[in-house]
Amino acid sequence: MKILSDPELLPARSAIEWLNERVAYINQRRLPLTFEIVITDDWRRLARAIKSLEVRGAPLIGVAAAYAVALAARRFANKRSNRGNLLRTIEALRRTRPTAVNLFWALHKMQMVMERTENTDDIPDALLNAAKALHEDDRRRCEAIAAQGLRLIQPGASILTICNTGFLATGGIGTALGIVYRAFDASLDIKVIACETRPLWQGARLTAWELTQAGIPFKLIVDSAAPWTIARGMVDICIIGADRIAANGDTANKIGSYGLALACREHNIPFYIAAPLSTVDPGCSDLRNIPIEERADSEVKSWSGKQIAPSEAQVFNPAFDVVPAKLITGIITEGKVFLPPYSFM
Amino acid sequence: MKILSDPELLPARSAIEWLNERVAYINQRRLPLTFEIVITDDWRRLARAIKSLEVRGAPLIGVAAAYAVALAARRFANKRSNRGNLLRTIEALRRTRPTAVNLFWALHKMQMVMERTENTDDIPDALLNAAKALHEDDRRRCEAIAAQGLRLIQPGASILTICNTGFLATGGIGTALGIVYRAFDASLDIKVIACETRPLWQGARLTAWELTQAGIPFKLIVDSAAPWTIARGMVDICIIGADRIAANGDTANKIGSYGLALACREHNIPFYIAAPLSTVDPGCSDLRNIPIEERADSEVKSWSGKQIAPSEAQVFNPAFDVVPAKLITGIITEGKVFLPPYSFM
Repeated sequence: MKILSDPELLPARSAIEWLNERVAYINQRRLPLTFEIVITDDWRRLARAIKSLEVRGAPLIGVAAAYAVALAARRFANKRSNRGNLLRTIEALRRTRPTAVNLFWALHKMQMVMERTENTDDIPDALLNAAKALHEDDRRRCEAIAAQGLRLIQPGASILTICNTGFLATGGIGTALGIVYRAFDASLDIKVIACETRPLWQGARLTAWELTQAGIPFKLIVDSAAPWTIARGMVDICIIGADRIAANGDTANKIGSYGLALACREHNIPFYIAAPLSTVDPGCSDLRNIPIEERADSEVKSWSGKQIAPSEAQVFNPAFDVVPAKLITGIITEGKVFLPPYSFM
Repeated sequence: MKILSDPELLPARSAIEWLNERVAYINQRRLPLTFEIVITDDWRRLARAIKSLEVRGAPLIGVAAAYAVALAARRFANKRSNRGNLLRTIEALRRTRPTAVNLFWALHKMQMVMERTENTDDIPDALLNAAKALHEDDRRRCEAIAAQGLRLIQPGASILTICNTGFLATGGIGTALGIVYRAFDASLDIKVIACETRPLWQGARLTAWELTQAGIPFKLIVDSAAPWTIARGMVDICIIGADRIAANGDTANKIGSYGLALACREHNIPFYIAAPLSTVDPGCSDLRNIPIEERADSEVKSWSGKQIAPSEAQVFNPAFDVVPAKLITGIITEGKVFLPPYSFM
């Protein structure tokens, strides 16, 4: 790996920090080949980072957007159009990732703080404090999820996961992968089976990088090898993240999650979701009829500028699938581990 | 696609042919970006083609090896050391793909023909005829499998498959994909869902290319999207090939096959194997304890010279998995469609 930045600029297991009036973040697009920390005082740079996936992972996007607003507030300080400029900034940030719920939620929070701050001179500090609080809140939620999940890990366990749910995806140590970190820190002698996570390879690129950095033993597999890996007795527990959880426990997550759940049930392997309670959508009773978000054909047909499939090939590229509640052993949240039948009241 | 060779050098849906004292074959390593037919009278060139996967697919490798022996026999004709040279050729060909059963079988057959030919002058023609007969035999088996399978296809069916089992894999139109061809030719208005087949992308590169050439409508998916695609009602039948079938019907095939079978059972989708009877290993009662063939880490960690995962990442890369007989609706062979409980006597 090419190292372009001093890793000590950021604390261990942190993807983003406020650093002397600036924001420092790991450029995830360059991982795992190059380690680069970008340091910027320009909110537009951070907006581009979100848009281009230099910063990704739903909770981390929320934190980054909050810091972007804080950067803008400092730049606009003492300008008469401070509030107007900030509203336009928030609007521009909202458009960076049009389907990111955490992004909207964080920006809404920042806007509320601005609107409640009567003295315009106080806005920059109020927004910075709000961004830091939002970050700290996410960090604490990750720790609480890890503490809840830790109780489910047996010494020597082999833990199967998909996608990236570690510190590169959150403001803290992660959700599913946060549990892995704390189990490793507790010397439980765990190991990980990481699904590569096609088409964007978050497992191969990001989770494998995080685990390598942490010195946690793992094996990378192609996604379709997971059922056989389970069948061969190489997995003791499966823990994955969640994009959205319905009131009945149905969970939408990265494409491939459903197949993992089916294979786990077939071989009596416990299958857990790890996610903050904010992922639960109480207005949604189940996910049976959730619309399929389809992403670009090009994600499947080419990689890194090189073509894999014929140009004429049509692709079906769903971004996520749904694990029905009946296949889920438990849902690990910051408050408790929910067990079926699920009720998050 | 860059076209380097006249496609009419080969008949439609053919990957290899004997052509005026030479062998013509499609260089599969260059697909789907470049269409190139290699024409050679040099058995060593053909040996390199097998070794480097320019020619792949178990039955096709057997046909190619037989033609390589025929080429060598013509070159060595009238030399005193004809038989000795041919034995060394056969030995060299045997080493091109050390685990290819069809290769050994075809070479054994060629060696027998040579040994039974008393007059040394007759060897070149005897071996060429044997190679052509072996090719013709494979072609006929493919047609018979397709005819058997065709009866299982409903008009308008959406057919899920994995890997490449078409004319690029056999001496004929293919096994599972041969059924697709004949269903399409019969105007059954079928469509295909093709799994990309990581790590070597035989689905994205080869099956997608074959279907594009044939004008058969299809959607390419990442392998892990298959269970969700099935759950959404987008699949009516699943048909895949086989590397090896045990006496009880357990089937070893490309990694990912087992997960497809689990998802099909969950959603009551018929799951078929299509393979010649020569794939059945009667000496093997079941495949419960079959050793796992693990392939190189590099297949998963990089592609086309570009690195995906960190260099330090360890990989578990099983070449195939096993679908237990209980998940298989039927096994389509050239003789009949076997139904459970399986007995191939």
